[in-house]
Amino acid sequence: MPRVRTLAEELASKQREISVAEFFERNRQILGFDNPLRALLTTVKEGVDNALDACEEARVLPDVQVEIAKSGPERLQVSVSDNGPGILRREIPNVFGRLLYGSRFHANRQSRGQQGIGISAAVLYAGLTSARPARVISKVREEEAAHVLELLIDTQKNLPKVVSDDLLLWDRESGTRVELVLKAKYQRGRQSPFEYLRGTAIVNPHARLLLVEPDGTRITYERVSNDVPPVPKEVPPHPYGLELGELAFRLKASGSRTLSELLPKEFAGVSPRAASEILAKAGLNGRESPGSVHGDRLESLLGAMHAVRLLPPSAESLSPIGPVLIKRGLRNVLGEVRPEFYAPPVSRPPKVRAGFPFLVEVGLVYGGNLPSDQPVQLLRFANRVPLLFQQGACAITNAVQTLDWRRYGLDQKGGSGLPTGPGLLLVHVASTKLPFTSEAKEAVAEDPELDKELTLALQVAARHLRTHLSRRNRRAFAQEKFDIILKILPKLAAKASALVDRPVPDLTPVITKIMDVLNVETTQSTDPKTVRLATEITNYTPRARVLELFVELPPELLGRASFDPIPEGTDPELGRAWWTLPKLRPSAKTQVTVEFPSGTEVDASDASWFVAGIDEGHLLGAEPLPGDWDVRLPRAIIEAAEAGLTEPTPSGETEVDYDAAEASARVEDEE
Amino acid sequence: MPRVRTLAEELASKQREISVAEFFERNRQILGFDNPLRALLTTVKEGVDNALDACEEARVLPDVQVEIAKSGPERLQVSVSDNGPGILRREIPNVFGRLLYGSRFHANRQSRGQQGIGISAAVLYAGLTSARPARVISKVREEEAAHVLELLIDTQKNLPKVVSDDLLLWDRESGTRVELVLKAKYQRGRQSPFEYLRGTAIVNPHARLLLVEPDGTRITYERVSNDVPPVPKEVPPHPYGLELGELAFRLKASGSRTLSELLPKEFAGVSPRAASEILAKAGLNGRESPGSVHGDRLESLLGAMHAVRLLPPSAESLSPIGPVLIKRGLRNVLGEVRPEFYAPPVSRPPKVRAGFPFLVEVGLVYGGNLPSDQPVQLLRFANRVPLLFQQGACAITNAVQTLDWRRYGLDQKGGSGLPTGPGLLLVHVASTKLPFTSEAKEAVAEDPELDKELTLALQVAARHLRTHLSRRNRRAFAQEKFDIILKILPKLAAKASALVDRPVPDLTPVITKIMDVLNVETTQSTDPKTVRLATEITNYTPRARVLELFVELPPELLGRASFDPIPEGTDPELGRAWWTLPKLRPSAKTQVTVEFPSGTEVDASDASWFVAGIDEGHLLGAEPLPGDWDVRLPRAIIEAAEAGLTEPTPSGETEVDYDAAEASARVEDEE
Repeated sequence: MPRVRTLAEELASKQREISVAEFFERNRQILGFDNPLRALLTTVKEGVDNALDACEEARVLPDVQVEIAKSGPERLQVSVSDNGPGILRREIPNVFGRLLYGSRFHANRQSRGQQGIGISAAVLYAGLTSARPARVISKVREEEAAHVLELLIDTQKNLPKVVSDDLLLWDRESGTRVELVLKAKYQRGRQSPFEYLRGTAIVNPHARLLLVEPDGTRITYERVSNDVPPVPKEVPPHPYGLELGELAFRLKASGSRTLSELLPKEFAGVSPRAASEILAKAGLNGRESPGSVHGDRLESLLGAMHAVRLLPPSAESLSPIGPVLIKRGLRNVLGEVRPEFYAPPVSRPPKVRAGFPFLVEVGLVYGGNLPSDQPVQLLRFANRVPLLFQQGACAITNAVQTLDWRRYGLDQKGGSGLPTGPGLLLVHVASTKLPFTSEAKEAVAEDPELDKELTLALQVAARHLRTHLSRRNRRAFAQEKFDIILKILPKLAAKASALVDRPVPDLTPVITKIMDVLNVETTQSTDPKTVRLATEITNYTPRARVLELFVELPPELLGRASFDPIPEGTDPELGRAWWTLPKLRPSAKTQVTVEFPSGTEVDASDASWFVAGIDEGHLLGAEPLPGDWDVRLPRAIIEAAEAGLTEPTPSGETEVDYDAAEASARVEDEE
Repeated sequence: MPRVRTLAEELASKQREISVAEFFERNRQILGFDNPLRALLTTVKEGVDNALDACEEARVLPDVQVEIAKSGPERLQVSVSDNGPGILRREIPNVFGRLLYGSRFHANRQSRGQQGIGISAAVLYAGLTSARPARVISKVREEEAAHVLELLIDTQKNLPKVVSDDLLLWDRESGTRVELVLKAKYQRGRQSPFEYLRGTAIVNPHARLLLVEPDGTRITYERVSNDVPPVPKEVPPHPYGLELGELAFRLKASGSRTLSELLPKEFAGVSPRAASEILAKAGLNGRESPGSVHGDRLESLLGAMHAVRLLPPSAESLSPIGPVLIKRGLRNVLGEVRPEFYAPPVSRPPKVRAGFPFLVEVGLVYGGNLPSDQPVQLLRFANRVPLLFQQGACAITNAVQTLDWRRYGLDQKGGSGLPTGPGLLLVHVASTKLPFTSEAKEAVAEDPELDKELTLALQVAARHLRTHLSRRNRRAFAQEKFDIILKILPKLAAKASALVDRPVPDLTPVITKIMDVLNVETTQSTDPKTVRLATEITNYTPRARVLELFVELPPELLGRASFDPIPEGTDPELGRAWWTLPKLRPSAKTQVTVEFPSGTEVDASDASWFVAGIDEGHLLGAEPLPGDWDVRLPRAIIEAAEAGLTEPTPSGETEVDYDAAEASARVEDEE
């Protein structure tokens, strides 16, 4: 008689390995496939992310087409094609038909795809909901024809199942196209492929993107930059945030003979000198074989690695968008909104989180046709990918919501939550390893280091906004004052003169005395041959002024600009030019023009104007020269100062109140 | 000369498989290990969930100990032990040292662990942060000694690495203990092991839980039920929500010869008759071999399976807590709060989502010492596990926030968001497969079917609350009226009598005429031998009344109760007893007492009182007999009615206003 199975045996007999594909098939909500709308977006997103990553690795300007067509009730065909390097025939099945397979997971550098899950997940979902295989076309430069494979995923094994394999003559040198039929639903709106591609265009201004909607509508985002971003370099991990188990693993796996040799070689930010310091602090002599260090010595080593001051991680592994392109990307898609203000974009230096470098960038746009009675729009990006779902669960949102925007001039109920106003915030987090809250990569998880940087970057942008708002108020105030003066004074003068029977006096000196500002105003005009920025400087102060004017442009724009008058000097690297203006008597004006060849992507907000020789309280429409600019004062200014012509910062002058208020707010802020 | 590698080859050479352990080591935030506080909770949670699942499978009352002790700076030792069936030696390494390995993933029945990730993830995190192996002790009943294994996870291979293997004499028949040393932080509070065990005790009233905190404090939650919940049965998938790819897979994998044979056998809810209907609708004759159905025929079959009306899924695969134990569990942990009202808990029938049965339960508690100026406390549970993180990203929270609680008597700003008031809401979602937003299982993903059930269940509970609040108001109102009458009428009468020099009349008839209510009031008293509920019924109406009184108790309490007077009848299954009361003249009162042996867990809110023979508008402290109760009217009542003694619902009577308002609100609600 066979022995009866005990309970423990019974239970043990049910233990089984779970394939990662089975796991995700059942948990498709984790991958972003839990309803037809989200499934479509996730599919498009994974396809486009891969396309952009591939193009960047091949250093080509990406040309990505997304076509969405009806393919039955509740069913769409989605295809994404690119002009990337293509995929070798032998790798196609694994890349598209196997979860947790890829080239970017083990590389410590920024990329969109990092998990080796995305596109295979879309293939899995397509097979599950339409029972149709994915069709992949890919051609590499060195072969004549493209390979066309149809494949499914064997869920139980997590392995590709190729159902057809053919060749095709394809009219491009290299590239990849993937076609999927899946249960999905198309509609425009906040979480649509339309919105996703718009966001992608903002943070990838070097990409050309085409979307064909199911009704045949074609939407193209042209590239606004011809520079492929540099391919981020792989870097070793940084010791800050490293865990004990990881260190133990690295020591054991290392090929180095001694600790002294290993530390600078296999960790970022560790100079030979810092290595010595670490070893001394840990009570090690450095001649230890890495594999022999464990237990207490291992803990001391890690403690010392965390305690010693190390170089920050190199930015080489990251691919920030940069201030110039953030602004240009925003302008490219915000054309119809015509914002009144683009804050200078913020691009923070890299920091470390859990051994991985990361950085934060922020762009802020204000005014124009942006709705003023709604919360500001928040555009979240992670490694140049727009995040459209899970806004509420995202560390980026949390950082925006916990900042007190009322201090920066925006309405915010109770000092937390999204502020209200005609604003748009772009926040980009870039890292060699981003902590997403799930595999769908829709939200960034909370992290103290990340949160600190997010807050700092947001504060910088918010301060620019505050300056703008206060300047706008000041200008409006000055304009109002000016209008009143010009309307009332002549009448008063006429009446007074009539009464005493004397001629009406020249009012200019009185008007300038009352106004007491230097007004800088730029107007833009475009004709078939040129784009012209004309800046007029008018001296509404009661004194003659000898001033120095500075302009700062994106460096590549400076190279294409012609100036009138010719600047006294330029700094091509920083994109600056400067002039000593002719002496301006009260009420006198002068003009500086900057011209670009027609077709140049430029507008007035690209140029920042600065004036030296007058203090901030009397300056409208330009900024005082920042203290940290290393500019030799031109001779003319010095001479003029010696001749007592320019303003010697007279102590008797009345300061304007709103200015003081702003200054005190700034001090409070900088703490 | 070797050929230079092309770019495509270069890129292909970097493609690699990613081990699931590597993936989660890097993405530990996804598993709930992104900071020391959360890592501790997740570890405790995975340990306890496994312990409870194991005990239930073995049909033993769980006895689970969680011990947390300091083990270095930022480091804690966590151990969880249970009295479950134990794990066979050969399975221990896989269960604890391999991700995506387990017995519950492939079983279509409710369990806490479903992923085969949890405890291995804790072992992974412990190894990563402390470089210390997990220690597992396990003993099965049929062996003399326990096995003690120390193990780590080989991250690159996702396989266990056993570092020591020994035997131990253990003082329990069977059970498992796991000990981990990890980077963690202990503090009490909203997201602590303390809170987690409190929640676990509420929804697992059959478990005994012990928590030892790092400072040595011991907290015990005693079990309040001695019934092990039945082990949920595995069931085949239900066709509703099934996807095409899944159907194709099941047809291919099936051992059935024909479709007619397969449908009722391999799908839940499909009777042979429904199978015929499906086949007819799909244009199939039923004799097809399952493997031969694909393409259009497959789609027609699925369409028919979704369209034909099927039986609901059986509840056997689910393990709801049930109304009685929800109430008892809540009372067990809310002792110090002394709520004034426990709404009858709601336990909805099972529904289907994506082929998986699920159900929703809701408990609602109000008043007492619960804070009245804060949002109601929301306790979320999934498969009897408390959810403490990601409240904002959870479908449960969303359902609570989108209900308009103002209609049910709670404050709620703008009619959405968490309502404010002294309330506590328990929401339990049970399913054979829950859609969590991530592997950390901290929040349930949005789903239209789920959302519908959540809303329905919440509405039922909310209606109970509204009835309670309105009854409370009514009682307060009646009491106030009563007090005034008793104070003023005698004075008036005395004055009036003095004026006309006549004796003071008997005021009782006047008082009862003005009051016009039947008052039912229960008081509870406890002495060493008994717990007594005394219910007093006073006739403050101007007529004599012959009434029938009903009580409903949890059935197991009814069995232990002794009544005075002896009831006219009882229904042990439904927990009901009833009496025909002696005729009550105006102002007369009578009493019914229910006694339980001392130590019985019972209080006044366990008993619901109903009265027949008077209409709702005149009833205070009890409910009218629900219309759907199948109770034969006792002879006495009928006779009394015939004799014209009881109230014939006179048309001339004034209805009380607040009642009408409530009735109209109810109608609006029920639509």
